[in-house]
Amino acid sequence: MHEADFLAALRRLPLHPGAGGLTDDTASLAGLTITTDSIVEGVHFLREDPPADVAWKLLTVNLSDLAAKGAAPEAVLVNYPLSDDDWDRAFVAGLAEALAAFRCTLLGGDTVSLPSGAPRVLSLTAFGGDAAAPPRSGAKSGDALWVTGTIGDAGAGLRIARGEQGPGELLAAYRRPQPRLAEGRALAPLVHAMMDVSDGLLLDAARMAEASGLAVAIDLALVPLSDAYRAFSGERLAAVTAGDDYQLLFAAPADFAPPVPATRIGGLAPGSGPSLTDGARAVPLPSTLGFQH
Amino acid sequence: MHEADFLAALRRLPLHPGAGGLTDDTASLAGLTITTDSIVEGVHFLREDPPADVAWKLLTVNLSDLAAKGAAPEAVLVNYPLSDDDWDRAFVAGLAEALAAFRCTLLGGDTVSLPSGAPRVLSLTAFGGDAAAPPRSGAKSGDALWVTGTIGDAGAGLRIARGEQGPGELLAAYRRPQPRLAEGRALAPLVHAMMDVSDGLLLDAARMAEASGLAVAIDLALVPLSDAYRAFSGERLAAVTAGDDYQLLFAAPADFAPPVPATRIGGLAPGSGPSLTDGARAVPLPSTLGFQH
Repeated sequence: MHEADFLAALRRLPLHPGAGGLTDDTASLAGLTITTDSIVEGVHFLREDPPADVAWKLLTVNLSDLAAKGAAPEAVLVNYPLSDDDWDRAFVAGLAEALAAFRCTLLGGDTVSLPSGAPRVLSLTAFGGDAAAPPRSGAKSGDALWVTGTIGDAGAGLRIARGEQGPGELLAAYRRPQPRLAEGRALAPLVHAMMDVSDGLLLDAARMAEASGLAVAIDLALVPLSDAYRAFSGERLAAVTAGDDYQLLFAAPADFAPPVPATRIGGLAPGSGPSLTDGARAVPLPSTLGFQH
Repeated sequence: MHEADFLAALRRLPLHPGAGGLTDDTASLAGLTITTDSIVEGVHFLREDPPADVAWKLLTVNLSDLAAKGAAPEAVLVNYPLSDDDWDRAFVAGLAEALAAFRCTLLGGDTVSLPSGAPRVLSLTAFGGDAAAPPRSGAKSGDALWVTGTIGDAGAGLRIARGEQGPGELLAAYRRPQPRLAEGRALAPLVHAMMDVSDGLLLDAARMAEASGLAVAIDLALVPLSDAYRAFSGERLAAVTAGDDYQLLFAAPADFAPPVPATRIGGLAPGSGPSLTDGARAVPLPSTLGFQH
C-alpha cells in the first residue's frame, strides 16, 4: 500500500483530537508536542553507516519535526533491535552524544531481537514542549516561501556514502543532520506555516501547498546551494528532489523579514500543485518530486 | 548484546526523571503513563498470523503494560512498515476493531518501506492516564503473590499456531491477548507491586522479586490452569515458562482479599531468586525461566 492510501485508511479510525487529522508531522497531548519516526537499514541509512551516525540520525530526524513546531525537545523513547555487541555499544555511545548535543533525555523504550540477517528497524518517539508554530496548512495566498540553510547537501552525501568521490562536508550532511531547533523557535510565532524538509524541497513544498489549498512556485535560481555542493555537482533539480535536508521550509507574508538566516525561494498563490522556474524560464516538473519512503 | 547489558548501558545516559531508572515497563511524563513495545515477524508473531490479529496483539501488549499501572488507555502512536495491499488493509481493519474494543484513539505514527522480503517490525506507543499502581519494586517480605486469570494458554496457542492440534480457545489466547485493564484499575491502589506477565510467569515473578530485593517462591500446584490447557497438555512447568499470558501478577499483604478474581500462587521472602515447589515437594528450576525476546 502507498503511504497516502494507508493514511487515508487510518483517518477513518477513531482519532484523538491531538492527532490533527493525521495531516501534520506532530501530535499534541497533555501540553506536549509528540512525533515518531522509524528508520530502516537499506532504506533510510546504509548498512555500512557507522552506528553512532545511525543513532544521531534516529534522534535528529525526530527533533527536526519538533523544530518545525518551535517545540523544545525534552525526552525520547527508543525502540531498538539488539544485534552484535560492537554495533550496539557504538550505537549507545552515539545516542549519548546526540542526546547531550540537544540537551535531551531518555524516557524509556523497548528492545527486540530480529531474525538472523534481517535489516535493522529503529524507531524513536520524541516529546517536546507546547507547539508554538501553526500547522502546515496555514499558508496564505500571496505568502513568500522561505527555506533555512542550504539544500541538496545530504542528497549528494548519500551519493558519496554509496561510493562516489566528494567532500566530507556533504557526507556529514547526510549522516549527521542538524535539526534547526533555534531557528524553529524563533520563527514559530511569526510564520503562517512551517515544516521540515525531509523528503525533498519540491515534494515537501507541494505538501505544504496542498494542505493550505494553494499552488506553490519555486525559482530554482533562488534555491540556496552550499559551496561544497556547487563544487560536487551544482545540479539544482537534483538538489530540490533529494531527501534528508532537515532544513525548515516556511510561508510568511511577502514583506516578512526573517529573524534567522533564510532564503526566499518562491511563493504561494491561488490554485494547486507545484511549479518550477529557473529565473524567468519555466522548468518542467520532474517525474519524481522527492524521496517517498 | 543481551537486553540486560543494553539496558545497563542505557542507564548511563541522561535519563528523564519519569524514566524511573528504566526499571519498569512504563514511564511518566506530563501526567501521562507511557509505554512502547515492538513486535517482530518470526519472533513475536508468525508470518502466517492473520494481520488483524497482529494489530490486536500490537495494541494489547502495550495496553497490558498500562493495565499493570492501573492507567486508562487514551491514545496510541503506530510505527508501521507498508507492504502489500491486502495485508495492510486487513491490519487497519484489525486496528480499528482493537482500538474500538478498548475505547482508545489514534494519535499519530509513521510509515516506512522495508527492503524486499524483510520481516515486519511494528512498534506502538500507548498513552494512558496517571499511574495508580506502585512500581514493581514495591513488594514486601511476607507478601503473597497473586495472578489473575489462567496461565499457559497462550504458550499452548503458539504450539497450535505452529501446527499442533488443539482447541481454538488456546489459539485465541495467543493471537488475541486480553489486557486486564479493569482488574488493573481495581488492584492498582491496593497492591504493593504489580506487573503484567508477558515473558512467562516464572521469569516475570523473578523480575518483581529482584526489583524488590526479595526471593519469590511459587507453588506449581496452585498455578491456575484453564480446562482447555489441562485437556491440551496440563504441563505446569511449560505453563509458567511460556510467554504471552498478559495476566496481572501482584504482591499484596498475606491477608489481602483481591477485589477481582485472582489466584494466590506463592509469596515473597527475604533472600534472592525464584524457587518452585509442587505442593510440598521442591522442584528444580528449569534452565530457561521464560521467553527472552
